[in-house]
Amino acid sequence: MPAGDHTIDPFAGLTDEVPTTLADHLRSVQLVDHHVHGVFDEPIDRAAFEASINEGSTDPVPGWMTMFDGPLGVAIRRWCAPVLGLAPHVSGDDYWAARAALEPADLAERFLRPAGVARWVVDTGFQGTLITPPERLTELSGGVPSSEILRLELQIESLLAAGTSPADLPDAFRARLAEARPHIVGTKTIAAYRCGFDVDWTRPDDRTVAAAAEEMLARPGAPRVDSAALSAFAVHEAAAAGLPVQVHVGFGDRDLDLHRADPMLLLPLLRIIEPVPVLLLHCYPFHRQAGYLAQAFDHVSFDVGLAINYLGSRSVELVGEAMEVAPFAKQLYSSDAFGPPELHYLGSLLWRRAMGLVLGAWVRRGEWSLDDAVRAVDLIGVENAERVYGL
Amino acid sequence: MPAGDHTIDPFAGLTDEVPTTLADHLRSVQLVDHHVHGVFDEPIDRAAFEASINEGSTDPVPGWMTMFDGPLGVAIRRWCAPVLGLAPHVSGDDYWAARAALEPADLAERFLRPAGVARWVVDTGFQGTLITPPERLTELSGGVPSSEILRLELQIESLLAAGTSPADLPDAFRARLAEARPHIVGTKTIAAYRCGFDVDWTRPDDRTVAAAAEEMLARPGAPRVDSAALSAFAVHEAAAAGLPVQVHVGFGDRDLDLHRADPMLLLPLLRIIEPVPVLLLHCYPFHRQAGYLAQAFDHVSFDVGLAINYLGSRSVELVGEAMEVAPFAKQLYSSDAFGPPELHYLGSLLWRRAMGLVLGAWVRRGEWSLDDAVRAVDLIGVENAERVYGL
Amino acid sequence: MPAGDHTIDPFAGLTDEVPTTLADHLRSVQLVDHHVHGVFDEPIDRAAFEASINEGSTDPVPGWMTMFDGPLGVAIRRWCAPVLGLAPHVSGDDYWAARAALEPADLAERFLRPAGVARWVVDTGFQGTLITPPERLTELSGGVPSSEILRLELQIESLLAAGTSPADLPDAFRARLAEARPHIVGTKTIAAYRCGFDVDWTRPDDRTVAAAAEEMLARPGAPRVDSAALSAFAVHEAAAAGLPVQVHVGFGDRDLDLHRADPMLLLPLLRIIEPVPVLLLHCYPFHRQAGYLAQAFDHVSFDVGLAINYLGSRSVELVGEAMEVAPFAKQLYSSDAFGPPELHYLGSLLWRRAMGLVLGAWVRRGEWSLDDAVRAVDLIGVENAERVYGL
Repeated sequence: MPAGDHTIDPFAGLTDEVPTTLADHLRSVQLVDHHVHGVFDEPIDRAAFEASINEGSTDPVPGWMTMFDGPLGVAIRRWCAPVLGLAPHVSGDDYWAARAALEPADLAERFLRPAGVARWVVDTGFQGTLITPPERLTELSGGVPSSEILRLELQIESLLAAGTSPADLPDAFRARLAEARPHIVGTKTIAAYRCGFDVDWTRPDDRTVAAAAEEMLARPGAPRVDSAALSAFAVHEAAAAGLPVQVHVGFGDRDLDLHRADPMLLLPLLRIIEPVPVLLLHCYPFHRQAGYLAQAFDHVSFDVGLAINYLGSRSVELVGEAMEVAPFAKQLYSSDAFGPPELHYLGSLLWRRAMGLVLGAWVRRGEWSLDDAVRAVDLIGVENAERVYGL
Repeated sequence: MPAGDHTIDPFAGLTDEVPTTLADHLRSVQLVDHHVHGVFDEPIDRAAFEASINEGSTDPVPGWMTMFDGPLGVAIRRWCAPVLGLAPHVSGDDYWAARAALEPADLAERFLRPAGVARWVVDTGFQGTLITPPERLTELSGGVPSSEILRLELQIESLLAAGTSPADLPDAFRARLAEARPHIVGTKTIAAYRCGFDVDWTRPDDRTVAAAAEEMLARPGAPRVDSAALSAFAVHEAAAAGLPVQVHVGFGDRDLDLHRADPMLLLPLLRIIEPVPVLLLHCYPFHRQAGYLAQAFDHVSFDVGLAINYLGSRSVELVGEAMEVAPFAKQLYSSDAFGPPELHYLGSLLWRRAMGLVLGAWVRRGEWSLDDAVRAVDLIGVENAERVYGL
Repeated sequence: MPAGDHTIDPFAGLTDEVPTTLADHLRSVQLVDHHVHGVFDEPIDRAAFEASINEGSTDPVPGWMTMFDGPLGVAIRRWCAPVLGLAPHVSGDDYWAARAALEPADLAERFLRPAGVARWVVDTGFQGTLITPPERLTELSGGVPSSEILRLELQIESLLAAGTSPADLPDAFRARLAEARPHIVGTKTIAAYRCGFDVDWTRPDDRTVAAAAEEMLARPGAPRVDSAALSAFAVHEAAAAGLPVQVHVGFGDRDLDLHRADPMLLLPLLRIIEPVPVLLLHCYPFHRQAGYLAQAFDHVSFDVGLAINYLGSRSVELVGEAMEVAPFAKQLYSSDAFGPPELHYLGSLLWRRAMGLVLGAWVRRGEWSLDDAVRAVDLIGVENAERVYGL
């Protein structure tokens, strides 16, 4: 990331707070964004843009407010405006006008290239038709390679939608995992959205799986996995196949019962699952619990993606809390960006800045050496993802 | 609030930390205290005073300690002592001696007038006979107007106590709401104290309400609403009448099961209620969850009142955490002061100081513009309350 | 603790942040470590050492990581290395080499003596054969006296293992408490590990206790108390005997369901127990809830021991959060050190440093007087423990 110019340097205003060596390392390290989605490939209107920077709501943004006046909105106006040639802190209207004048591909290139990412690990399972597939993300970002994550519940739904019978589902699912395996680096469960974590995580037998599928198909509408048996089945199969499992935890949209997405409720699963890498994603406001689990189980790691962007300036404290108990080998970087490419850029920038402020204070106080700080950055930003996904 | 003099200036000691323009704005802005109670109108003894600065306990303060040696006690000795002509940091004994020498009305005037409040939105439902009614609060504060909030559970109890039959309760309650409507700006539920939030929030029909009232009356003692059906009824009726609903959340006295007052447990209600403004009050230590809900639902807002006073110097971090995910249009200021007028003053002072420190750091680092900081102050301190209550 | 030399002064690097008087007081105050265990009395290998600085895991530390690269590991390399004559921030390998060259007794003396502890209050109930008993801890620390805490569940298990019949258990347990009483200053329950807190805390009658013991004995293996009835019995008996009760809360190893060790779930017990001192131990990440309970109940106090060590540099924020709502008479200091004597030393050092930073900032801003800061240190570090245990 660029240094010096206060409009775009991620360490602008922090000369006294972040030691130069650490800032320089954080500017230059090329991150693995281990949980990310594509960018919008079509023009969107302002309402869609504002909705896309509001995690959680399915209400339209009301007329008496704008998402530009919120933590993420302020961060976009501060850090993304200069990328579009605007002054930091422009108004939301001015930001929108400049953004709306650009083609989606142009926007994407402007934000993806300076993000300083060495690899995108892409979750393609959500609204996949609105946004770019991995190969296009690679192209728009100037050749940054992409790896792919397979959404587990979606596979079950697509198999059943394509006519697989409930009785055949278990074998068909295993076949699909086997077939996908060469092309993916891991899997993801959205059990948080479908059944919550306070369920029976025992590995179900095939008969139980078939019965759960049967019951699901008996309901009107497209097949939608929302039974614990099916999520548990999918997760245990992925683990049995030796595939890493990402788990959506905490912060998400309001369909989700946030308190039932507390990672502590995963204990029964973590105690019995085959010890493949389990990656707890987002985790806010339960990131302390996630750090505790990452310390307690060799196979568990976590990130605070998504929340870094949404908290804006407060991402510093979030990153600090994420540094509390887990060894540095057990935490990863992600943006969880989806849609506006601002989010792919901003996640990277805010994480670097936050790490600089958190670690910088400890280095200045003599509590950490510069070497330790650099190693923590490299582990969390790059190497842990390389290890857990075998990149 | 007064500037310069380090004994009473809310930004004393923060010259390097809070930009002058921001400090000046925070000194002068006249707040809407959107959730507050009256002040003591009779002299109290020291035990009663100490009890009134201990939220939660029903034990008497034991002989081996004093509430003056706690976060709120330190804040009172620091910030309220100068208002009584004492030096900052006087001992608890000296503070008490000076305070005890003044009449309640004199005390009230000394603290209410410099609080910098433009309007009190008063909850009159709790221990209403010990403290001043709204019109007296207005008088003591030099003409600051008051608006009134109606306690929902109390209306049910008073209707039944006055002889309304269970079968007549639903209509009588609706009639009372209709009658109260011109005189109030909103309503409040204390379901947190009565049934907790992990209950059925479906809107009950009148027959169910009557049966719940019948059951309550069959018990000995004065009628006390503690069934989910009655709280749910009252809340849905208030919403159907288009009235804002305040909800006590989190921090409160020990009668309350704090973990059953987690705002996430309100999800089933928030998903179905008529979208009138819902104001989550206090929220500590679940204020992050409250901010998340305020982001996820257009009709939900929150505050961290009560806790600001109780945390004393730590109110800075609390206010910081409250700035994490909610748009600035979704947070409000309140003191939740009750009894000693010190609390009406201190809530206002600590909030200004905390906002100055939190926003000031971001402005100094170049992450926020001064304009953004001022706008966030105005929204949270004044304008959001004006909008949600139609003041 | 030593001043000046930046390699070992706990306030190294903080000249501008901690007022000299406060730093000097914090260097010299002799603490009561109110919850601590013995030190290893036999040489251990590196794997055992790394395991002993990983709370929670029962997995071996995997080859791709080291606990030296984590918050506690960094703190050991920074603060303990100089005690062994090494430079701060040595590598984990170098630290291990120096440590491994020393005898256990030598190691213990080096770390225990400069810990600045006036009294160890020792929990002897866990893996008591691997580590030093209280008298040896006293000897190794140069004569610092020890007091003893009795583990409640262990007494039941040992009585039954020694042949006490279920029917005789209640009387035998009471007799053991009476017999132990002159030799102990308090008791401890590990209900968190055995039954969780979301259980029936009613005081069971002797018949219920006998039945629970009967049922336990009917299972294969050594007797292991894991029924709520037995823990509730033990706790109520200890309280009836006037003995303080320590309660393991929150942070612990992964056998524990952390979310079922939330102190709020103890409300039903706290509301009915004889009001002996109840000490909530550790509490992370529920320390805010613990502070709330300490404020709400005269007989409840808490600490953030164990977590202070595990959070390393982040112990500052932890100590800050622990200062939020509880009066200063309701919090205690502990290290919860177990095994490596580094932990006995580091807990003390990090607590002093954190208190210096937290209180120092408030003093510098004029929010607290130096006297108030010193009094809070003395209460939390020394006097509260003296009072609750009658030392």
